[in-house]
Amino acid sequence: METDALIIGAGPAGLFQAFQLGLQGIASHLVDALPHVGGQCAQLYGHKPIYDIPGIPVCTGAELVQLLERQIAPMQVPRHLSQQVESLQQRDDGRWLAQTTAGTLFAARSVFMAAGVGAFVPKALKVPGVDGLLPEQLHYHPLQLDMASGHTVLVYGGDEEAVNAAIACASSCDGPQSSGGSGAAKTYLMHRRDAFQAEPQQLARLRQLRDSGAIEVVIGQITEVRHAAGRLGAVQWMDGEGREHLLSIDMLLVFLGISPRLGPISDWGLSIERKQLVVDPATQATSAAGIYAVGDIVTYPGKKKLILCAFHEATMAAFAAAEYLQGEKPLLQYTTTSAKLHGFLGVAHPGAQ
Amino acid sequence: METDALIIGAGPAGLFQAFQLGLQGIASHLVDALPHVGGQCAQLYGHKPIYDIPGIPVCTGAELVQLLERQIAPMQVPRHLSQQVESLQQRDDGRWLAQTTAGTLFAARSVFMAAGVGAFVPKALKVPGVDGLLPEQLHYHPLQLDMASGHTVLVYGGDEEAVNAAIACASSCDGPQSSGGSGAAKTYLMHRRDAFQAEPQQLARLRQLRDSGAIEVVIGQITEVRHAAGRLGAVQWMDGEGREHLLSIDMLLVFLGISPRLGPISDWGLSIERKQLVVDPATQATSAAGIYAVGDIVTYPGKKKLILCAFHEATMAAFAAAEYLQGEKPLLQYTTTSAKLHGFLGVAHPGAQ
Repeated sequence: METDALIIGAGPAGLFQAFQLGLQGIASHLVDALPHVGGQCAQLYGHKPIYDIPGIPVCTGAELVQLLERQIAPMQVPRHLSQQVESLQQRDDGRWLAQTTAGTLFAARSVFMAAGVGAFVPKALKVPGVDGLLPEQLHYHPLQLDMASGHTVLVYGGDEEAVNAAIACASSCDGPQSSGGSGAAKTYLMHRRDAFQAEPQQLARLRQLRDSGAIEVVIGQITEVRHAAGRLGAVQWMDGEGREHLLSIDMLLVFLGISPRLGPISDWGLSIERKQLVVDPATQATSAAGIYAVGDIVTYPGKKKLILCAFHEATMAAFAAAEYLQGEKPLLQYTTTSAKLHGFLGVAHPGAQ
Repeated sequence: METDALIIGAGPAGLFQAFQLGLQGIASHLVDALPHVGGQCAQLYGHKPIYDIPGIPVCTGAELVQLLERQIAPMQVPRHLSQQVESLQQRDDGRWLAQTTAGTLFAARSVFMAAGVGAFVPKALKVPGVDGLLPEQLHYHPLQLDMASGHTVLVYGGDEEAVNAAIACASSCDGPQSSGGSGAAKTYLMHRRDAFQAEPQQLARLRQLRDSGAIEVVIGQITEVRHAAGRLGAVQWMDGEGREHLLSIDMLLVFLGISPRLGPISDWGLSIERKQLVVDPATQATSAAGIYAVGDIVTYPGKKKLILCAFHEATMAAFAAAEYLQGEKPLLQYTTTSAKLHGFLGVAHPGAQ
């Protein structure tokens, strides 16, 4: 796929990068390891408040992502999700060849690293039998739980996300006291010890659902996954005293944590300091021509890992890339008054007839 | 008035500077030459759309200012409006003494220049008699026109603001076809020639109101203001052929343009390049200890005069000033999770009992 700009990472920095490139008339593609856009912001604090986005007194991570999606809608940026760029090499003509884990191949004139602290990769469950499961039977850190409806579900993990998932599964959709529940037929929550990390309110709700029998907590660890002809039938698990048991289930939701991994980026020959890409803050250029970086992945004097700073960096990078790609320094134009920018934004220009 | 931080300029950059200082636990005061906060944003494009504030797909200048006001409300920042800082000198103890045109005196440990392209100063009407008018009889570039209700008003000027003001004055509050009109008893619009600068829709409305007699256009220039015992009675004006006339009015709204003036800032010994303050982008520090600058007034390599860049700059300046004022590098904390920041923001902290 030939493109002027490839953006690696579709968190707030990557999304706004696409917007600023669009304002420069530069079409881009977005790639992200997660199955959705929003990055950390959607994954780690989707439902938590953020107070320091300028002009937005309060929003959740998910709301910010939705707002950015609306803002970049005019740019019609193709997204390539659930895949990581695993190789990046410069061709003789200067284009960067990037290949993703899903086999997508890009030949990009410029590349924008907006990969945060790296690709967010869920920690895999490594026990016999896991590889034979179908995608719909095993979910790592799902954001929505609609698919659990009617299933016998095992939520595996002990952190806030696991607790919330178990609560959501156990809360019936049409029950009087819940909203947004997924209505699993039966919900198990397994953790290696009887201590869960969540906010007091969630822990109280968990206690309530355990008391009513809506959630059955199992203290132990999965040792094997049993399935036949591709159908998940049960997990084998071990209790604290080393005894093995079987638990019949037909859906497994795994919450063992999501670790950011810089991954292959560290092998691409870019100048790196303490796992961060060194950039010139005037242009956000890395040490390689045509490669820019923005957001939490970069370092420069005074760098603060804040979303609002990433927005500024994406703007600086777009101007620098426009000069690199178009051969002349772009004029600073204002979205309030510029007919050209109104064209890119798809809005009516007051002066037009 | 003793303060840790004095912010000169209450446009978006200055407002967000107050917010970021607040997150560092630093109390500040805002000073602005205009009678309201918002700066250029409120004055020049209050009703025009802005599309590039990250996370805000579209807002007017006035809306952005309102959002920022809501965001900084927890910081309870005192405002000192309709006054310019006219002198700035460092005391022996390192504090900066700042005196405004209204006589307010500050002793500030740090100063933040957020003065845009300078103080927005309306061009004054310089004819005999003007100085004797009461403030309620002469208004320069008013943003609201409620005070015109029931008066015989002369709008003086030919640009968009003047045309809109005349339309608003002539539109009766309770009339069927207008909203937000101020209902002047009689509205004159005077300009030196019969050509007005405004958008086609406004010009069409002006034409309509001229035809109906609701606005009387006078082609000429004011040569003198007549008043007795402090009461405005009339203006003397000259037509294109040099003949003098009298026009009875009791309120004068002057729209001769607002020019930004760097003014006294250029005399304070700070390092300046092409009328802009030179700063280190890692700290936004100027050449004087304790003085920072952000927004359109600064220059550094790659500087773009965009509101979203000013937000980043204000953040960098707040961190640098926190280190300067508190003697140690502040930790980066997140508004989503930090109990300390929740305290400054006045919001409930989830972990609190």
